[in-house]
Amino acid sequence: MVGYAFMGRVHSQAWRSVGAFYDLPVRPALAALAGRSKDHAEAAARRFGWAAVESDWKDLIDRDDVAIVDVCTPGDSHAEIAIAALAAGKHVLCEKPLANTVAEAEAMAAAARSAAARGVRSMVAFNYRRVPAVALARRLVADGRLGEIRHVRAIYLQDWLVDPEHPLVWRLRREKAGSGALGDIGAHVVDTVAFVTGQQVTGVSALTETFVKKRPLPGAPGTGPVTVDDAALFIARLTGGALASFEATRFATGRKNSLRMEINGSLGSLSFDFEAMNELWFHDATLPGEEGGFRKIIVTEPGHPYLDAWWPPGHGLGYEHTFTHEVRDFLSAIAAESDPEPSFEDGLRVQRVLAAVERSAAEESRWTAV
Amino acid sequence: MVGYAFMGRVHSQAWRSVGAFYDLPVRPALAALAGRSKDHAEAAARRFGWAAVESDWKDLIDRDDVAIVDVCTPGDSHAEIAIAALAAGKHVLCEKPLANTVAEAEAMAAAARSAAARGVRSMVAFNYRRVPAVALARRLVADGRLGEIRHVRAIYLQDWLVDPEHPLVWRLRREKAGSGALGDIGAHVVDTVAFVTGQQVTGVSALTETFVKKRPLPGAPGTGPVTVDDAALFIARLTGGALASFEATRFATGRKNSLRMEINGSLGSLSFDFEAMNELWFHDATLPGEEGGFRKIIVTEPGHPYLDAWWPPGHGLGYEHTFTHEVRDFLSAIAAESDPEPSFEDGLRVQRVLAAVERSAAEESRWTAV
Amino acid sequence: MVGYAFMGRVHSQAWRSVGAFYDLPVRPALAALAGRSKDHAEAAARRFGWAAVESDWKDLIDRDDVAIVDVCTPGDSHAEIAIAALAAGKHVLCEKPLANTVAEAEAMAAAARSAAARGVRSMVAFNYRRVPAVALARRLVADGRLGEIRHVRAIYLQDWLVDPEHPLVWRLRREKAGSGALGDIGAHVVDTVAFVTGQQVTGVSALTETFVKKRPLPGAPGTGPVTVDDAALFIARLTGGALASFEATRFATGRKNSLRMEINGSLGSLSFDFEAMNELWFHDATLPGEEGGFRKIIVTEPGHPYLDAWWPPGHGLGYEHTFTHEVRDFLSAIAAESDPEPSFEDGLRVQRVLAAVERSAAEESRWTAV
Amino acid sequence: MVGYAFMGRVHSQAWRSVGAFYDLPVRPALAALAGRSKDHAEAAARRFGWAAVESDWKDLIDRDDVAIVDVCTPGDSHAEIAIAALAAGKHVLCEKPLANTVAEAEAMAAAARSAAARGVRSMVAFNYRRVPAVALARRLVADGRLGEIRHVRAIYLQDWLVDPEHPLVWRLRREKAGSGALGDIGAHVVDTVAFVTGQQVTGVSALTETFVKKRPLPGAPGTGPVTVDDAALFIARLTGGALASFEATRFATGRKNSLRMEINGSLGSLSFDFEAMNELWFHDATLPGEEGGFRKIIVTEPGHPYLDAWWPPGHGLGYEHTFTHEVRDFLSAIAAESDPEPSFEDGLRVQRVLAAVERSAAEESRWTAV
Repeated sequence: MVGYAFMGRVHSQAWRSVGAFYDLPVRPALAALAGRSKDHAEAAARRFGWAAVESDWKDLIDRDDVAIVDVCTPGDSHAEIAIAALAAGKHVLCEKPLANTVAEAEAMAAAARSAAARGVRSMVAFNYRRVPAVALARRLVADGRLGEIRHVRAIYLQDWLVDPEHPLVWRLRREKAGSGALGDIGAHVVDTVAFVTGQQVTGVSALTETFVKKRPLPGAPGTGPVTVDDAALFIARLTGGALASFEATRFATGRKNSLRMEINGSLGSLSFDFEAMNELWFHDATLPGEEGGFRKIIVTEPGHPYLDAWWPPGHGLGYEHTFTHEVRDFLSAIAAESDPEPSFEDGLRVQRVLAAVERSAAEESRWTAV
Repeated sequence: MVGYAFMGRVHSQAWRSVGAFYDLPVRPALAALAGRSKDHAEAAARRFGWAAVESDWKDLIDRDDVAIVDVCTPGDSHAEIAIAALAAGKHVLCEKPLANTVAEAEAMAAAARSAAARGVRSMVAFNYRRVPAVALARRLVADGRLGEIRHVRAIYLQDWLVDPEHPLVWRLRREKAGSGALGDIGAHVVDTVAFVTGQQVTGVSALTETFVKKRPLPGAPGTGPVTVDDAALFIARLTGGALASFEATRFATGRKNSLRMEINGSLGSLSFDFEAMNELWFHDATLPGEEGGFRKIIVTEPGHPYLDAWWPPGHGLGYEHTFTHEVRDFLSAIAAESDPEPSFEDGLRVQRVLAAVERSAAEESRWTAV
Repeated sequence: MVGYAFMGRVHSQAWRSVGAFYDLPVRPALAALAGRSKDHAEAAARRFGWAAVESDWKDLIDRDDVAIVDVCTPGDSHAEIAIAALAAGKHVLCEKPLANTVAEAEAMAAAARSAAARGVRSMVAFNYRRVPAVALARRLVADGRLGEIRHVRAIYLQDWLVDPEHPLVWRLRREKAGSGALGDIGAHVVDTVAFVTGQQVTGVSALTETFVKKRPLPGAPGTGPVTVDDAALFIARLTGGALASFEATRFATGRKNSLRMEINGSLGSLSFDFEAMNELWFHDATLPGEEGGFRKIIVTEPGHPYLDAWWPPGHGLGYEHTFTHEVRDFLSAIAAESDPEPSFEDGLRVQRVLAAVERSAAEESRWTAV
Repeated sequence: MVGYAFMGRVHSQAWRSVGAFYDLPVRPALAALAGRSKDHAEAAARRFGWAAVESDWKDLIDRDDVAIVDVCTPGDSHAEIAIAALAAGKHVLCEKPLANTVAEAEAMAAAARSAAARGVRSMVAFNYRRVPAVALARRLVADGRLGEIRHVRAIYLQDWLVDPEHPLVWRLRREKAGSGALGDIGAHVVDTVAFVTGQQVTGVSALTETFVKKRPLPGAPGTGPVTVDDAALFIARLTGGALASFEATRFATGRKNSLRMEINGSLGSLSFDFEAMNELWFHDATLPGEEGGFRKIIVTEPGHPYLDAWWPPGHGLGYEHTFTHEVRDFLSAIAAESDPEPSFEDGLRVQRVLAAVERSAAEESRWTAV
């Protein structure tokens, strides 16, 4: 694994736990952790149970005891690390967004295709696909329970930047993060909508805004410019004919991690909010109208996606379990010699939507095909 | 009153009830009802308690016992009736949308200005301003409790057109209704946002769609083309710098009359859904973070807007009461010799937003200033 | 109508409105209002539209233009007025609780039986039966959708007495009110449970408490003793074998008028809270478990009880409409020459439960048969 | 650890994870797992990461590499194992209910007291105390935010026995389980109420019921009698003067694991439902009434109990984390040489309430002091 911050912590827990709950043909061992600061990496490795440490990710890739490379670094290093790892024959799980630019993402998708031909697998870590309620939503759509989809509303709301004194961390600098709320959390809703509906965005009209334009430098006097968006809104059309509305913001005061989605189809509707991640709301319009209503499905039944491994009904899961499910699917695909989803190609598709959003916003919300 | 269908029924109930609950300097008498079908008008008058009936609205305006004209007809006749009534010195309450075109709305606003100079009052019937929870929302914003507003999400969802066999009623024909979901329900959210935030839309980028393009003719064989939108989505900027996202649709399966609004400001946020009209959700970000949370205010306290006239706390109001509040405000303004709100000018402003939305949608979502 | 306070106001609105919305064979005229203070009664009559005023209810009963007597006074006068009115051949609608003692209630029920034999009708005003969601709950139970009922939880929570400085109003004095939270609001849940489940309470074990034992005298210096309960809790068995838990309190801080009920049966469950009176939650356990969940039925469809008279779906009703429905049912029964429900016999049954609760609480929660 | 079924699985995950998230002076190693079936125990040990296996729990206690014994067996063996382990100088974490009888629980509490004098610690595993929202509730009560407590409603609803064909598992046999819903889930609400309010039950009046009296024998033809309760209801008084209502049932169709609690005090109220375990609802009655309302606190802020170790706000926890918190508190207390809570004495107190409930139910709901 490369990286040991937030994503490193939660990925470690997933790798450590997956074998205790799922029957897998292979059981992962936590071989080595790479991080630029050897001290920090060693502390993290001790804590999270990694057997060895490397201060250069290239050495990690060279190790014989490493079969999988898990890329948990900021977006600007994804392409280099992932392409090198694939070239070295290592399966690669890469955090999202796949890259900071479409060009990088294209190179990564090409590398993934060529690696796949050699039996080397790759996956991009859109973990919200692995929320059981979201996977159940996809199943209901795929089973035709919603009929023809007319509307999608997908928003991702956080509020951690409302305070203008919050420092200028790397996520607020374009050269590191690529974009702001758009790439960090907007990428998730774009992917989740594609996953659940099976439809892709064909074009967008967008607005972005940076509400707080300067922020204190972290660990230094003075302020610096925020070079990414604080919020991004866009309307879109999907391949199947639906209209869609998207929003990503870090300025929705009081909303902590509210990835919400509502889908309205000719036969039914679905509604989801990650702040209540064990619930999926489903309206089945084929029932008699007088009994109709959005029903709150508590997604903890053994027949629900991923749930056979966990606790009795009503004993909910948390954020971290989405990563346990993710590595379970990745390991299953490797063992089955099949290509896991979402592929780098899926990651590239999201990247193209993000690029279209930025272009549209820069050109007075002009309609921009993806 | 002109018209005796849905709006006529609910306006009648408001006129009949207002005096029993509010102390008003004047008490309205239900003088006369006008409708093209004398039989139907007479039946409606008997039922709703109107003293007389006219089959021509011009005769209604000529009556000496009529001081107020309440226009409840489809949008294509608003301008003619309202302008004539104002010219005759009658105060005018006019259903929304104010008119079917900007030109008509401009003429009406001009007539209203000139009438006001003569002490004749006019008001457009955006009843959702009179939901106590919505009026409380405005009060909280006006009191600065939200700080600087960054985001507005305002959507109005219904589902009564999902069935493709629903007939081609007048609301689906452009010449009668002006537009579809946009003018019928989108107009409400545009006005409600202006009311609550005190900010106006400055420009839009829009998508509209007609999902079901032909429908059965009512009372006749064959089908005819739907000439209005089934749904309208737009993103916008507001005068105060906020980003806004709007949606109006009659295809949101399972949503019956869901006028929803969320407003995120630097100091707090508000959330509302008309399907639970007695509740306003308020997040006060100035409280300690560990105690923070959206609180469900049950808007039935005596100190809440309009509530001093009704029942003890927790004994909720319904849809019809928004109209009782509306005529109460209208009568109060007439008695106080002041101009009521929302004015025809406010109605014109909404009309301009609707026109900009239609233009943007017709020109590939081009950014269109209002 | 006798009485013009809270109940008088809402009953007046119901009598005035019912004919405008429901097709009734008879249309009520608001003949006369009786109240001990002639001045107050006259002001109320003007406001609510009553044609005449009497300062003695006996004169009201004597009037030839009065066919129905609506008793809206405190409980200690119900028996005398209602029995006299029935004897005079007037149909009687009587507010709840039917009386302050079982003996009074028995005399009233006997009078009602004898009047019914002469075609004179009587009804007790348990208005919560006329909440459309509650009537829908009864329909679902009656249709067998819940199967065999195992559990009922029914509580009625208010908080208007939390402030110890709230004065010693008549509702806090045993000689006027009979009991406290128990008779005022506990009576409603006892009746509502009987209505929805079709089962009666067979025995109870109870606790009551008066948290604030002295309160300021209203309009006088000094304090006086509170002689009724502030809260009553009891567990019970129902005729059909279900276990039940009841609570009535005016000390549930933050709960304004929360009449809540949950019913669990072998095939499904129901849940209701009057603070969201247009919603009924229904769990249908015969659906596949993976799709199961409590569904929020918005009880505003034309096929829902009482709803054919009102607005389109999603345009909710309020507290006052329960009274409109009540007088509609009463008038319909009179016209149909049938006995309306709930009868005085039903009111007596509730009274017996209340008496058993008080006896059990006085005797260390001893099990007390009803 | 003794036992490897449901509780064994979730305890294992807690022991394995705790060191990765909390800074602890000691880091637990998973030394050995004991279970009667060596094959099953070995499979469980491999899966959950235990280093060794014993087929007799006595051998586990004898091991030098075991400092802590975690008792996850059915209640009938708790006393013997825990007392032996304490005598051998091992710290003991024991699943709830502490024992199947008051006598056993007394012996355990005595053993725990004597062990504590020697520095040997013991704790009973009421994990719901470690739900962050529940711990926050306790903090708010302890800080005086609710004022004087008047009402507690605490219910625990499941539905896994609604199907009469569910087999007669050990939890339905008195000799193994002690009691039914009462000891299994009722014990949790009794303890949680004591924890949050700081008050103890002083007396009860109770009803219990077995709805399905015979069930199929597991793995054998024929049926056998259910010898425990399916549901238990009781009303109670608490040491601080509050009235309380309790319910535990496995027949609440549609409720999967709904541990709900509402507490009403003179200054505020709290409400919680484990089915939405990351939320605590708090009404602060000291705020202006017009702004009042139950607020949904998403209990994921760094300042919330246990939350400093986990993810950013809004990224919720699940059921298993309550156990991670539990072993964290147990290990912290051992390291700090202090007695952890809840103690065996606390477990004994719960046992006495359960016994009083059974006695009251057996004697016609007679009031029974604890």
